Amino acid sequence: MPKGKPVSIDSALVEKWIMELAAFGAHSGTGVWRTVYSPEWVAAADAFEKWGRDAGLAMRRDAVGDVWARLEGEEGGSAIVSGSHIDTQRPGGRYDGAAGALAALIALKALKEQFGKPRLPVEAVALCEEEGSRFPSAGFWGSRAIVGRIAPGDPDRVVGYDGETIAEAMRAVGLDPDHAQDARRNDIAAFIELHIEQGPVLEGARLPVAIVDAITGIRHIEVTLTGEQNHAGAFPMDRRRDPMAGFAEIVSTLIDHAHRLGRPAVTTIGRVDVDPNGAAVVPRSVTFTIDARHPDPKARKALYAVHDAVLREVCERRRLSLDVRPVLGHDPCLSDPYLLEVLRSAAAEQAIPHLVMASGAGHDSQQMAAVAPVAMIFVRSKEGRSHTPEEFSSVEDLVAGTRLLAEALYKLAY
Amino acid sequence: MPKGKPVSIDSALVEKWIMELAAFGAHSGTGVWRTVYSPEWVAAADAFEKWGRDAGLAMRRDAVGDVWARLEGEEGGSAIVSGSHIDTQRPGGRYDGAAGALAALIALKALKEQFGKPRLPVEAVALCEEEGSRFPSAGFWGSRAIVGRIAPGDPDRVVGYDGETIAEAMRAVGLDPDHAQDARRNDIAAFIELHIEQGPVLEGARLPVAIVDAITGIRHIEVTLTGEQNHAGAFPMDRRRDPMAGFAEIVSTLIDHAHRLGRPAVTTIGRVDVDPNGAAVVPRSVTFTIDARHPDPKARKALYAVHDAVLREVCERRRLSLDVRPVLGHDPCLSDPYLLEVLRSAAAEQAIPHLVMASGAGHDSQQMAAVAPVAMIFVRSKEGRSHTPEEFSSVEDLVAGTRLLAEALYKLAY
Repeated sequence: MPKGKPVSIDSALVEKWIMELAAFGAHSGTGVWRTVYSPEWVAAADAFEKWGRDAGLAMRRDAVGDVWARLEGEEGGSAIVSGSHIDTQRPGGRYDGAAGALAALIALKALKEQFGKPRLPVEAVALCEEEGSRFPSAGFWGSRAIVGRIAPGDPDRVVGYDGETIAEAMRAVGLDPDHAQDARRNDIAAFIELHIEQGPVLEGARLPVAIVDAITGIRHIEVTLTGEQNHAGAFPMDRRRDPMAGFAEIVSTLIDHAHRLGRPAVTTIGRVDVDPNGAAVVPRSVTFTIDARHPDPKARKALYAVHDAVLREVCERRRLSLDVRPVLGHDPCLSDPYLLEVLRSAAAEQAIPHLVMASGAGHDSQQMAAVAPVAMIFVRSKEGRSHTPEEFSSVEDLVAGTRLLAEALYKLAY
Repeated sequence: MPKGKPVSIDSALVEKWIMELAAFGAHSGTGVWRTVYSPEWVAAADAFEKWGRDAGLAMRRDAVGDVWARLEGEEGGSAIVSGSHIDTQRPGGRYDGAAGALAALIALKALKEQFGKPRLPVEAVALCEEEGSRFPSAGFWGSRAIVGRIAPGDPDRVVGYDGETIAEAMRAVGLDPDHAQDARRNDIAAFIELHIEQGPVLEGARLPVAIVDAITGIRHIEVTLTGEQNHAGAFPMDRRRDPMAGFAEIVSTLIDHAHRLGRPAVTTIGRVDVDPNGAAVVPRSVTFTIDARHPDPKARKALYAVHDAVLREVCERRRLSLDVRPVLGHDPCLSDPYLLEVLRSAAAEQAIPHLVMASGAGHDSQQMAAVAPVAMIFVRSKEGRSHTPEEFSSVEDLVAGTRLLAEALYKLAY
């Protein structure tokens, strides 16, 4: 691996672009409300394109509206790519997504200015609709298009919160949904995404950045426990088949189990619906979700095996009927070992203090992994907040992350 | 206490009146939908009045529509009264309430026919709106009127599910809500109510009837646990303040505790509302109800002390904020020792196999206790079902209960 050279990152530019991009869709103080294909999103994409063009990069839009900046290489061939999304939650903050798209553009500008033409082409990309915040079933829309995961007809089937199809929304901003497949690429040699952590781990460790060695695997299941609805007064405890009692035992057991496993295992019960949900009625049924994540494929399997065994045992013992419906399942996305090594040595050479950790949230990188080796860089989040106007990462930490990204791109492309 | 004489109860009449009353508001097969002041309720009250008049009893309606049958006594003075309600759930079954109103009427008819004029007056009453099934805040309306718990103006403040006030509904059936206070009585020497058990205890004991020595004390509280809403993936378990985890621990602990106390303690968590209730979000708050009942005043206090201590301890340890709102509280209503002795000796003399137990549900008797000594008789419920068209008690069991009631009335009034 070539030894790197220090890349200088302009902290004033980092701050300027973060704040200027945040102005498109500015909402409730420090928030941003910028859903895909909205006027605010169009303005943000235009700004990204203008900034790249002004930096001397070759700019283009692909068939779904991802904005690409390219620094051509001497040797041509597959490109070293970095980027993230510029759509937000409703409202989100200034950093989730935007930080990574801008860090990629800033890294390219810095590399071009400081080192000239690379050996391999280097690209920055601003992806669209990662959040699924306008079209709930279209999460990772931009990155899915790039890896060929949008089928003909899909745009007409994806419906937004306001009832519009994504095909209609695309046409309204001058994109042709019938050509969404044209966004596909098979010439990406590596993809590195910078993103805010969205959790409190870096803050707890007092470190500005992390190298992400995996995106966690996730399983959502929806569980219904059915017992017998009865009078809360007239039915003795020993005669009940109470799904609430089974639910409480299961939730306690699964959450305690995740605590004992320790990081990075997480288990969350976030949604509960009780039938009939009356104060003086032993419920007939309790329906709830279990979101359980682990980035290690083997440990993840073992985690789910415990969940399945606990569900079965508790329901059998309590004479409850059990119905389990899978909702979502993603295998862990492991970072590429060579890219991890590049990031580690870049951090070491430039003395960037860092942690190695897994991502508990999903990211565009897990889509990009279908066509290229991937890795990620996390930047410290204040109090672990995200998906809220209160999310915050300092300019210093963003510069540290962007510097690490630029160093890695240098090592890979020069 | 005078030794009784066997009272003969006509089982054909028990079956006939149960079925004929059930025809008023017949619903979905074996169900009954008969809300207070509805045309079906008017028809049922008219039938009760006609049957009493045909039996030679003096009939009258009071100011809220309770129907009274009176068998005058030689000595006059305060009356020995029995009865229950004839309104139902939406839909309920044929027995909840109706069984007790008819048993009282049948007992009076039998006593009159078999023993003539008693020493003390004996009355049967068909009460109204015990269930609160048309006017949710008017539960025990008929018995509350009798004990003076309806204040002037109350009828204009009680609003039904359809938006009508109970004053309007009273006027529509020819009652004057401004005179509701006239229903008050202070000349009741004893009140004995027969009711179906609504639980599985008698069925489990293979016994037809029970003597009820107390109506349980009840406390409803609404609890909100508030923690910190976070990302289900990015927030490690050890950094969470998860109200769902606290909720599950509390529910498990309280339900286990009630199990260990054994009958007659019951604790029910029937209603849960989660904010924001998303599958991939550690909740911000969980709000739930705790319905906890015990018929022994001291044991009930101890039960609530455990609940309060568990809530405090779990919330403190888990760094959750705790908000507790009282919703409902009734002290236990203990049956009168002399009436219990009368019922016990009547059952013994007539060889009626029985259990002594507490009622876990509320009944008109707990209102009547404000003006008279009370006791209750339970009749076995099939599978403990009630508030459903499937509720069922056999004619044999109803006859056994009515016989016990008639024997007790004989001992008290003759």
